[in-house]
Amino acid sequence: MTDRPIVPMIEYEDASAEVRAVYDDIMATRKSDWVNKFWKVLAHDPAQLRRMWESLKQIMGPGALDPLTKELIYIAVSATNGCEYCTYSHTASARAKGMTDAMLMEVLAVTGKANETNRLANALRPPVDPQFQPKDI
Amino acid sequence: MTDRPIVPMIEYEDASAEVRAVYDDIMATRKSDWVNKFWKVLAHDPAQLRRMWESLKQIMGPGALDPLTKELIYIAVSATNGCEYCTYSHTASARAKGMTDAMLMEVLAVTGKANETNRLANALRPPVDPQFQPKDI
Amino acid sequence: MTDRPIVPMIEYEDASAEVRAVYDDIMATRKSDWVNKFWKVLAHDPAQLRRMWESLKQIMGPGALDPLTKELIYIAVSATNGCEYCTYSHTASARAKGMTDAMLMEVLAVTGKANETNRLANALRPPVDPQFQPKDI
Amino acid sequence: MTDRPIVPMIEYEDASAEVRAVYDDIMATRKSDWVNKFWKVLAHDPAQLRRMWESLKQIMGPGALDPLTKELIYIAVSATNGCEYCTYSHTASARAKGMTDAMLMEVLAVTGKANETNRLANALRPPVDPQFQPKDI
Amino acid sequence: MTDRPIVPMIEYEDASAEVRAVYDDIMATRKSDWVNKFWKVLAHDPAQLRRMWESLKQIMGPGALDPLTKELIYIAVSATNGCEYCTYSHTASARAKGMTDAMLMEVLAVTGKANETNRLANALRPPVDPQFQPKDI
Amino acid sequence: MTDRPIVPMIEYEDASAEVRAVYDDIMATRKSDWVNKFWKVLAHDPAQLRRMWESLKQIMGPGALDPLTKELIYIAVSATNGCEYCTYSHTASARAKGMTDAMLMEVLAVTGKANETNRLANALRPPVDPQFQPKDI
Repeated sequence: MTDRPIVPMIEYEDASAEVRAVYDDIMATRKSDWVNKFWKVLAHDPAQLRRMWESLKQIMGPGALDPLTKELIYIAVSATNGCEYCTYSHTASARAKGMTDAMLMEVLAVTGKANETNRLANALRPPVDPQFQPKDI
Repeated sequence: MTDRPIVPMIEYEDASAEVRAVYDDIMATRKSDWVNKFWKVLAHDPAQLRRMWESLKQIMGPGALDPLTKELIYIAVSATNGCEYCTYSHTASARAKGMTDAMLMEVLAVTGKANETNRLANALRPPVDPQFQPKDI
Repeated sequence: MTDRPIVPMIEYEDASAEVRAVYDDIMATRKSDWVNKFWKVLAHDPAQLRRMWESLKQIMGPGALDPLTKELIYIAVSATNGCEYCTYSHTASARAKGMTDAMLMEVLAVTGKANETNRLANALRPPVDPQFQPKDI
Repeated sequence: MTDRPIVPMIEYEDASAEVRAVYDDIMATRKSDWVNKFWKVLAHDPAQLRRMWESLKQIMGPGALDPLTKELIYIAVSATNGCEYCTYSHTASARAKGMTDAMLMEVLAVTGKANETNRLANALRPPVDPQFQPKDI
Repeated sequence: MTDRPIVPMIEYEDASAEVRAVYDDIMATRKSDWVNKFWKVLAHDPAQLRRMWESLKQIMGPGALDPLTKELIYIAVSATNGCEYCTYSHTASARAKGMTDAMLMEVLAVTGKANETNRLANALRPPVDPQFQPKDI
Repeated sequence: MTDRPIVPMIEYEDASAEVRAVYDDIMATRKSDWVNKFWKVLAHDPAQLRRMWESLKQIMGPGALDPLTKELIYIAVSATNGCEYCTYSHTASARAKGMTDAMLMEVLAVTGKANETNRLANALRPPVDPQFQPKDI
């Protein structure tokens, strides 16, 4: 028996107008014709769905960093937290934005190494070097 | 009373030849004249010190990703894990490689959002969409 | 091939008297006629089984907080840690105690947001405001 | 030497009109005359500051759950993640909303126990019981 | 200003008979004349204090594993979770039971490496090899 | 539909000479005739594959700690992080090195308890006792 989502997915045809508006914007923004299952479970709380989508759209768009770099960071965090769904979905998004396998393997090498040295620093407790203290403006 | 490191720091003048060789390579690689405290506590295990430095030097150097992007990923992972020392040291490294405050704030916006959606996906358990499944080569 | 539990489950009919006594108390306390699989793997260490059940029974019962609030907290922690089994079992327990889908979605909104701001605080390192310092009694 | 925040705090008198508008709403919503340091570091990204405050205000307000229950959940997550700043600030918020020491100790008992059983389940890998599978609507 | 504990510490002379009984057993078990601060904050919930101490005493005593090995595992988990207090207290306990600096450095090498490969496995998602599946009894 | 690995596995017959050399050393070191899937996905980055295998071989071999103790620590960390693959693979490795079920259950009791007290300490914030401060050499 396969595990089922904790709440049922809300498909487009069963969705309220408020939910459909978000689904429509997801598809328009991504230039795609489908909505992934993360949003279909989140749709049980339409206000949360809209808030999450609006903030994600702003955060992941171009800014001081380009969208591909942001997807790489998303993969690093999702691997650190062990989120299966997020690993698959953001690896797919990053590939769609140009991530090669060589880039993926380097993201993971850095992610793995950071997880390693984080624990060594947390366990050995070196004080922060004065040279690393942020300067006043 | 300030907390002390779990093991004493090994300063250059007290270090064995094996440890000094690593310290020298750290300074030469970074074109700097000091070694930060992380290495000075790790030096209690010279083999581990050398192995860690060698692998970090390889991983953080240029490759499919540039060194600044790698530092941004390091910050994202260190923030996710709550490593205080690593946050200070890698923020300083990233700034030395050109990270602006605007870039830092975007890294953190993505890191925070990934930590948020990771938990929503872990709690609501949507199945991985077939469209996200990796393709055979 | 489906993954198997790391140790086999110990069913009631194969259990020792010591293990059966705990299983009986679990069913009596919950007014149910079955024992869930978490306990059946833990039963490989009868002392640990009894200690865990006794402490869980005390902690999750009514006190300064009601049992439903405690289940909501359990869901928040399990989502944060990404424990699949615990997410399913404690969502089911919370529903049995009256949790609606609207309540679940709010628990997760708070859990997600806390995971997000935790990382921003860990990364930006604001000092604790004097107003937040606990007062002497 | 005390560690400094990664970016300087932006005080009200130095803030832009955009940032001041958020600070004003924080104080008005909380009926207080000061802004805590979390917001003063986040203010380096005014759009992120506003987005975070708006969403937090919506999520932590009354709904299917009361605001005190939401603060308890915030404490549970912050303890699980080990966020020092968040532990102090949300314990203070919860106390202001009526949390007693007895309630705090019960939140932590549940949080500790959930962190314990999460790892036992993750290590022993019992399958999810069919009785815990969510039902179709 | 130094951060203060979230609840005041309960000293022996101010403790109830119930709390003193636990403090006395801690000192008798450890053959020491002082109680560390973890217990003095936990004492705000005497039932939780007693339950925690009783279970910890049972778990950390000799069994299939010796007490020193158990302390090493405690250090590995505390480093992984980034618990500052636990790192100091369990490193001290392990040293009192015979841990050398060489042993500590090896515990941390394994802990760091496990944290690294955990993320690589979580990110790359290899299926569990049939050879690793637990066998029936 | 079963989830697929994020990158395809590289089998021995399709591997480059560089990758085969690592696979050969894995099998020779373990005196086995197969390579587990973790390495087959990591093989997409041959330099990372070799570096990871070399360091793991050094770290997990005999030293100040015996190889079985090191496997127990690996299980404790993998359970704490919730890494499914690592839990199965390192439990199997530990069993091959002599771990009994009684030893496994004790590792997990300590792991669970450490995860519990880590959160209580992180939430209640007792200062580190002077007696636990590391001494100068």
